[in-house]
Amino acid sequence: MKKDLFQIPDGVIYMDGNSLGPLPKSVPTRLSQTVHDEWGAMLIKGWNDAGWMDMPTRLGDRIGAMLGCANGSVVLGDTLSIKVYQALAAALNLNPDRRVVLSDNGNFPSDLYMAQGLLNTLNRGHELRVVDPDKVLEHITSDVAVLMLTHIDYRSGRMHDMLALTKAAQDLGVVVIWDLAHSAGAVPVDMGASGAEFAVGCTYKYLNGGPGAPAFIYVRPDLIDRIDPSLSGWLGHDAPFAFELGYRPAGGIDRMRVGTPPILQMAALDAALDVWDGVSMDELRSNSIALSERFISGVEQHCPTLTLASPRDPQLRGSQVSFQCENGYAVMQALIHHGVVGDFRAPDLIRFGFTPLYLDSGDIDQAVDILARIMRDNLWQDAKFQTRSAVT
Amino acid sequence: MKKDLFQIPDGVIYMDGNSLGPLPKSVPTRLSQTVHDEWGAMLIKGWNDAGWMDMPTRLGDRIGAMLGCANGSVVLGDTLSIKVYQALAAALNLNPDRRVVLSDNGNFPSDLYMAQGLLNTLNRGHELRVVDPDKVLEHITSDVAVLMLTHIDYRSGRMHDMLALTKAAQDLGVVVIWDLAHSAGAVPVDMGASGAEFAVGCTYKYLNGGPGAPAFIYVRPDLIDRIDPSLSGWLGHDAPFAFELGYRPAGGIDRMRVGTPPILQMAALDAALDVWDGVSMDELRSNSIALSERFISGVEQHCPTLTLASPRDPQLRGSQVSFQCENGYAVMQALIHHGVVGDFRAPDLIRFGFTPLYLDSGDIDQAVDILARIMRDNLWQDAKFQTRSAVT
Repeated sequence: MKKDLFQIPDGVIYMDGNSLGPLPKSVPTRLSQTVHDEWGAMLIKGWNDAGWMDMPTRLGDRIGAMLGCANGSVVLGDTLSIKVYQALAAALNLNPDRRVVLSDNGNFPSDLYMAQGLLNTLNRGHELRVVDPDKVLEHITSDVAVLMLTHIDYRSGRMHDMLALTKAAQDLGVVVIWDLAHSAGAVPVDMGASGAEFAVGCTYKYLNGGPGAPAFIYVRPDLIDRIDPSLSGWLGHDAPFAFELGYRPAGGIDRMRVGTPPILQMAALDAALDVWDGVSMDELRSNSIALSERFISGVEQHCPTLTLASPRDPQLRGSQVSFQCENGYAVMQALIHHGVVGDFRAPDLIRFGFTPLYLDSGDIDQAVDILARIMRDNLWQDAKFQTRSAVT
Repeated sequence: MKKDLFQIPDGVIYMDGNSLGPLPKSVPTRLSQTVHDEWGAMLIKGWNDAGWMDMPTRLGDRIGAMLGCANGSVVLGDTLSIKVYQALAAALNLNPDRRVVLSDNGNFPSDLYMAQGLLNTLNRGHELRVVDPDKVLEHITSDVAVLMLTHIDYRSGRMHDMLALTKAAQDLGVVVIWDLAHSAGAVPVDMGASGAEFAVGCTYKYLNGGPGAPAFIYVRPDLIDRIDPSLSGWLGHDAPFAFELGYRPAGGIDRMRVGTPPILQMAALDAALDVWDGVSMDELRSNSIALSERFISGVEQHCPTLTLASPRDPQLRGSQVSFQCENGYAVMQALIHHGVVGDFRAPDLIRFGFTPLYLDSGDIDQAVDILARIMRDNLWQDAKFQTRSAVT
């Protein structure tokens, strides 16, 4: 759809945009402006004159508009892990008499880790109840304080029914947090329609913000002014530059800000978001489904030893597909060597992202061909594909 | 000392490096490499092949070496506010039977705000006891769990006696956290010699890492493996890429990492740190004192209505000087208009940073001349200097 807006290396079919989006061509120029014309030339005045101070909310609105969030309900900053902590602390405060946080074992581990750290910090007898993804609905009970789920499973691409689970939770007074890490820019999302209280997500995957791009947090507008932030930093203060000794939360979503925003990352993300101008999420979604269906059908035809590990029904998947694959690590290394970049998730999943902004059906056919050849000719047995690196 | 390594706009005498350091000339090239040759060309492989994953500890060691911290005891990430929260949560865990956090009203407000948020989150009856800076010593008592101070006051430049206060605290079993925001790159610091348990700081002031550069945290090496992180993110896990459901802290300082590091900011900071190669902190300190003494003496001679608001003894100051100044906001605007960039802190302080890397005695004399002319000719009365902007 927008392939010419990205810098994809020659000979690479990039199917790992669900982990780190590629470089939008608009980013280097923008970053250079921010460095030379803003930091270099304006120095400290950049905070006012270049609009740095407002970037977290301005970019929040840009991303919010893609996710059905009202203006003024999303703010950027920190990392997704920090935003999970913030959201969960706030959610628990909204349900002070309950002691269960319900999640599933398809959640991204860092979300569970942050919850464990918060519950230990609270030390008030909370339980983190982690169930199978398909058992979440039946575990939504009236002792649950917060339902905290990642919308789309990072391994399989399985997608939760956001509307149904949110409604079931709220019917029993459960506060809901959605992690949209694998949803934002990947599938249509309508936070407003979901009614969920909180959402969090990252911007370096389908939103192509670059390595370590800032995270975002959404708070349902009617709740924002009731939130008592656990991470009560000065930029969430009502008057940061009054330098008062006592914390007073800002009105609105600003109170979810913490410290000084990472302006270089924000500038890169701002430029990266330009590629979304005029993109219809419904069209993107149908393209994504067409690509993933084409890939599954090709792989199943030509690679009989691989087993689909993602839901077969595309309506139950996000924008990624995984296969169970013996010797998956070496197979993925061989694929990368031959120009098809996906990734491996232990113990045996090879994982592929479908990003119609820069992938087309020709890419998919070529990827299938290469994978088929690697499997047929056992190219993955080459010794150079066996050594594990630190980050896989 | 190194003026030619910085891009300072023509006609600007930059005396606000204590707020945001100027652009080191090495940064744009490095950032361009990171964007094109790493993100653009390596894509996801940058995490391994470009060493992104190790940047937080590698840069931690670079900064640690400037602060007397052993290798492996400093890690970069997040914002200073987040690092304060992490340090205070860990410090309170080391002193579980006490309920007082002692700080002073010269601490940067965000540190106090973060403490308030943490103590509210803990909800275990802790008291944040905030006293006058010169009363800290007498308030160190055996009911204090943690002494949490900013080494150098952000307004006046007053510098605490790190060694004496740390010793007094530890003699009574008090755990100590130093915020080095205005110290790192400004004055000699020896964390190892101080014996303090924790230090935190930011890198966008005297370390010139750029707007929103990541923060750092130091943990005394003998304690690191006893820390139970409150912000228990996946990159602080012992095996982040095993994607286990339960958190197990990494050995060593890695456990103070939280989420995905901001690689563009890290790259800018890495390049910015190059200007410190071969710099002697003792020489820098004596230059800084010479510049600030020259400035004070010039201002007191030529601007009789201004009153020094910083300690007169340079050994009791960091690398900045403030004056009380009626109509200080307008005076600072006039100064900036005439090329001398300092800043204003309510209600009536004009503040100047002394950064010998890129300021020399000629700059100081010129700054004094300009300030003297603004005061003598009432240039600050011009209407255009009266309007307050959001960030001052």
